[in-house]
Amino acid sequence: MKDKTAIKTMIEKLKTLKSDGMYLDDFFLTWDKTDDELAAVFQVAEILRAMREANISPKVFSSGLGISNFRDNSTRTRFSFASACNLLGLEVQDLNEEQSQIAHGETVRETANMISFMADVIGIRDDMYIGKGHTYMKQVADAVQEGYDQGVLEQRPTLVNLQCDIDHPTQTMADMLHVIDHFGGVENLKGKKVAMTWAYSPSYGKPLSVPQGVIGLFTRFGMDVVLAHPEGYNVMSEVEEVAKKNAKANGGSYKRVDTMAEAFKDADIVYPKSWAPFAVMEERTKIVEHNDQAGLKELEKRCLLNNAKFKDWTCTEELMATTKDGKALYMHCLPADITGVSCKEGEVEASVFDRYIVPLYKEASYKPYIIAAMIFLARFKDPAAKLEQILEKGKKRIK
Amino acid sequence: MKDKTAIKTMIEKLKTLKSDGMYLDDFFLTWDKTDDELAAVFQVAEILRAMREANISPKVFSSGLGISNFRDNSTRTRFSFASACNLLGLEVQDLNEEQSQIAHGETVRETANMISFMADVIGIRDDMYIGKGHTYMKQVADAVQEGYDQGVLEQRPTLVNLQCDIDHPTQTMADMLHVIDHFGGVENLKGKKVAMTWAYSPSYGKPLSVPQGVIGLFTRFGMDVVLAHPEGYNVMSEVEEVAKKNAKANGGSYKRVDTMAEAFKDADIVYPKSWAPFAVMEERTKIVEHNDQAGLKELEKRCLLNNAKFKDWTCTEELMATTKDGKALYMHCLPADITGVSCKEGEVEASVFDRYIVPLYKEASYKPYIIAAMIFLARFKDPAAKLEQILEKGKKRIK
Amino acid sequence: MKDKTAIKTMIEKLKTLKSDGMYLDDFFLTWDKTDDELAAVFQVAEILRAMREANISPKVFSSGLGISNFRDNSTRTRFSFASACNLLGLEVQDLNEEQSQIAHGETVRETANMISFMADVIGIRDDMYIGKGHTYMKQVADAVQEGYDQGVLEQRPTLVNLQCDIDHPTQTMADMLHVIDHFGGVENLKGKKVAMTWAYSPSYGKPLSVPQGVIGLFTRFGMDVVLAHPEGYNVMSEVEEVAKKNAKANGGSYKRVDTMAEAFKDADIVYPKSWAPFAVMEERTKIVEHNDQAGLKELEKRCLLNNAKFKDWTCTEELMATTKDGKALYMHCLPADITGVSCKEGEVEASVFDRYIVPLYKEASYKPYIIAAMIFLARFKDPAAKLEQILEKGKKRIK
Repeated sequence: MKDKTAIKTMIEKLKTLKSDGMYLDDFFLTWDKTDDELAAVFQVAEILRAMREANISPKVFSSGLGISNFRDNSTRTRFSFASACNLLGLEVQDLNEEQSQIAHGETVRETANMISFMADVIGIRDDMYIGKGHTYMKQVADAVQEGYDQGVLEQRPTLVNLQCDIDHPTQTMADMLHVIDHFGGVENLKGKKVAMTWAYSPSYGKPLSVPQGVIGLFTRFGMDVVLAHPEGYNVMSEVEEVAKKNAKANGGSYKRVDTMAEAFKDADIVYPKSWAPFAVMEERTKIVEHNDQAGLKELEKRCLLNNAKFKDWTCTEELMATTKDGKALYMHCLPADITGVSCKEGEVEASVFDRYIVPLYKEASYKPYIIAAMIFLARFKDPAAKLEQILEKGKKRIK
Repeated sequence: MKDKTAIKTMIEKLKTLKSDGMYLDDFFLTWDKTDDELAAVFQVAEILRAMREANISPKVFSSGLGISNFRDNSTRTRFSFASACNLLGLEVQDLNEEQSQIAHGETVRETANMISFMADVIGIRDDMYIGKGHTYMKQVADAVQEGYDQGVLEQRPTLVNLQCDIDHPTQTMADMLHVIDHFGGVENLKGKKVAMTWAYSPSYGKPLSVPQGVIGLFTRFGMDVVLAHPEGYNVMSEVEEVAKKNAKANGGSYKRVDTMAEAFKDADIVYPKSWAPFAVMEERTKIVEHNDQAGLKELEKRCLLNNAKFKDWTCTEELMATTKDGKALYMHCLPADITGVSCKEGEVEASVFDRYIVPLYKEASYKPYIIAAMIFLARFKDPAAKLEQILEKGKKRIK
Repeated sequence: MKDKTAIKTMIEKLKTLKSDGMYLDDFFLTWDKTDDELAAVFQVAEILRAMREANISPKVFSSGLGISNFRDNSTRTRFSFASACNLLGLEVQDLNEEQSQIAHGETVRETANMISFMADVIGIRDDMYIGKGHTYMKQVADAVQEGYDQGVLEQRPTLVNLQCDIDHPTQTMADMLHVIDHFGGVENLKGKKVAMTWAYSPSYGKPLSVPQGVIGLFTRFGMDVVLAHPEGYNVMSEVEEVAKKNAKANGGSYKRVDTMAEAFKDADIVYPKSWAPFAVMEERTKIVEHNDQAGLKELEKRCLLNNAKFKDWTCTEELMATTKDGKALYMHCLPADITGVSCKEGEVEASVFDRYIVPLYKEASYKPYIIAAMIFLARFKDPAAKLEQILEKGKKRIK
């Protein structure tokens, strides 16, 4: 546990980062943000965590809503968002589209304003359809901006992407903070090899946002990022371009390989995880648009059959042994499909998963703080000054 | 944004209004309340809004529940209630009747007490069945009063009608506050013409509470209120009696006309909106009581066919041009059925709706403050003194 | 209403009770706890109630989540848990297993940690299957303990059993506190006769946790506890052993009888309530495990037929007249099956139920305070000191 002096030092470091571009802005994609801005998110997350551990309450809102809109199932992101809002003093109000009048023909613009009269943050998960999620979030953000500009809203709520079709920034930023802490600092990451690989799962249609988010973010830290997947399981080419550009700018590398073996070889970090081929996701979007239930079933069948060809894409002890010193950091966004535990054949062998269970849970534990940091940086112009003020007041979380 | 001095002046004005009858009382229907009481609701709403805009937190409850019970879908009222409770410091707990044991044969009296041990307010929407919603709310209010009198409850929660079969006071009071602000003060409303008119919608069975609420409230401000609807689409005659009585007492007028054209002619305010005929709503209640699914389908079909005869009851640019100076204030409780946007043929032309989108959103923005004001006036015997105290303390909403 | 001096005296009494074993511990079964610990729960509950009545806010958490997981329907326990959390400053976040990814194969251990990063308490209802609920709660508690020990969780959330297959401690402790207050103190309970009896209900499969909880708790106060039920409607024999042991240790008695008449004769307290035979519950668990829908229907039918043989097991005025002075305290956890009100033939005659409605509601009113006390004692090492501090500060609940 860090004491007040240690936290003060952390705040001093935050002051060296230029993050004012985040004020009143949204968080859609990590590659929209500057290096300093990402560093600020990590730094504020660590400060908020240190404060909470020291029983100091960073409750900066006396009232205000944090609105969540989960268009796909969620456990850890739902609770992370709720925890983040609660830590800062916002009350979560879930926009359950089934209980609402949205089905009755409301526009996105209208709904966005109607729920935002007292909202300081809106968190959205919309990851099911390629070409949809990010677009929807942009529409919501534009709508509340318009509402704010026109005097409809007293404050401009910040939009936090809780997973879209392109990126999953609260996940990958938590992943990255875990990596930073695991390797003892961002300065130790240069030259580390990261294997983001596809893995077999008996389910189909898992979003691409995690692999895309990982190659789009991890390439910014001078690491050698390798993406591996069977033929046809491509991710969005635009994101691969981002990864290449990042690698170039930051002194690492990005490449695609055809086997898990090649990806795992000497890797410092492995992230084996299933996803659906981009082409399938595109097709699904069209099928759903036409409400073609038979077509959807057929696609699922076809996709599962295709997946089944690649059951050997699984994270085994044997493969783990080929990583750097045989002990790469195994990562996963959870829940994982564990062979013999949650399914017959899955993404990872049970013994590998079990060995990494504590690091995996720690990886997940950063997410509430990452979300809280994103909100904090969007709502306070001078975050360091605000954090200093919280520290000085020293209000206790548990009295 | 108003400064502290301006807010102080607003509080001074509140002191001139006799609102102590609202203390520990409920809010069912606007016509239960005196003129001073309604004026106090508007005034407290404006003060709370001014405080929030000035970053002053009117959080008067350190803990306590605000219970919501939505027996029909809701977005804006749900979020308005949540916002209001949160602003004052109450935590919303939703009574979801499906997740509860109510199906197992609990009486209204029992449930009302069981959920209210720490409740300061109960908000209910029950607008689907004629003769039911208001009655149910009365039962709940009587039950908690009994519980309070018998020492079961430590406090008497206030009931706020979030829409019943008769009135929708949080909507129409927000509507009215919008009108007051739009015309620069309640003193400018005398002689203004209001057209509350039916409009075609491809859905059936919309509640009557908005048109009823509007004619029951707007007639209290010396305005000339006109209700227009096709033959058979009557509202409750009791409410028309209220409107007539109000008009007589306040120097305006109330009349019913047979065409939109006549209603819109020279109107200062137009409120075109669909609703179901009272007789249909009564029939539906009986059908539902007998759980006659076939009968319900048949009624819906019959009703939609009848509606379709009146597709020309729609708010067009042409009609708008006939209003006072061609620029009457267009109002709607939202969501509206917009021709070519949310439906093929609906209540309003897209160009009209679009032109009024900012005023419409502002209209909606008053609702959280109206609800908060209703709660405030029911929970504090001397609301002005309490508001002065909040102002003096000046606790910040965002620290 | 008690004043500060009276509350101070209550805190003094709390100091005489040794309750430090509850610190950072869970609440599964009343018979896991020492007499002092149970007395401390009652005492803290009464102090929190007295404080709230005196408008003093015992909000000890500035932030933090209270997680609820209702695997069976609930109204009063849901609202009691929400009220308790809110009173202390925790925000309720419901783990709705349908909206989550739990169906996708998460383990209990994983979910428990994922939701607990900022959780101070987890309340679980899992009462449907014999051999399951308590086991599940233990797994959750073990999982968060492990997470805490391994540094995954910053705090160890306390688990509160909101009803399992074995016990329903928040209910029976509220029941008991009602009994204590009714008879003017725990010292007046020795020798009182308690009739915990089965009663007919037209539903089947009601949990055994209430009768089991009652005989396991009430036998600790020197009372003469009698359990009556038709042949075959046994409760768990392990719990009967607990009851016998308790009776021996505390100077009362425990026995099983075959008729309501014998149980009610001269009883000071009667608790007539339906439950399913233990053997049926065991069978149901197996049927559900095999997902045998036909078997389940068949079991229900068979069970209802069997229940119907015992329609004369109902709490009549006639039976009530045979109790001590004809005015035993009638108890029920609610909702009751009331003859002629919520069902044709049920657990109790309407006139009996009506006569006891105020005491029944008061009985229920203790539950929020019992839950708050359980949380309080688990989160504060020196509860008396903390309560003294709250009293001194005197922060108002309603400002």
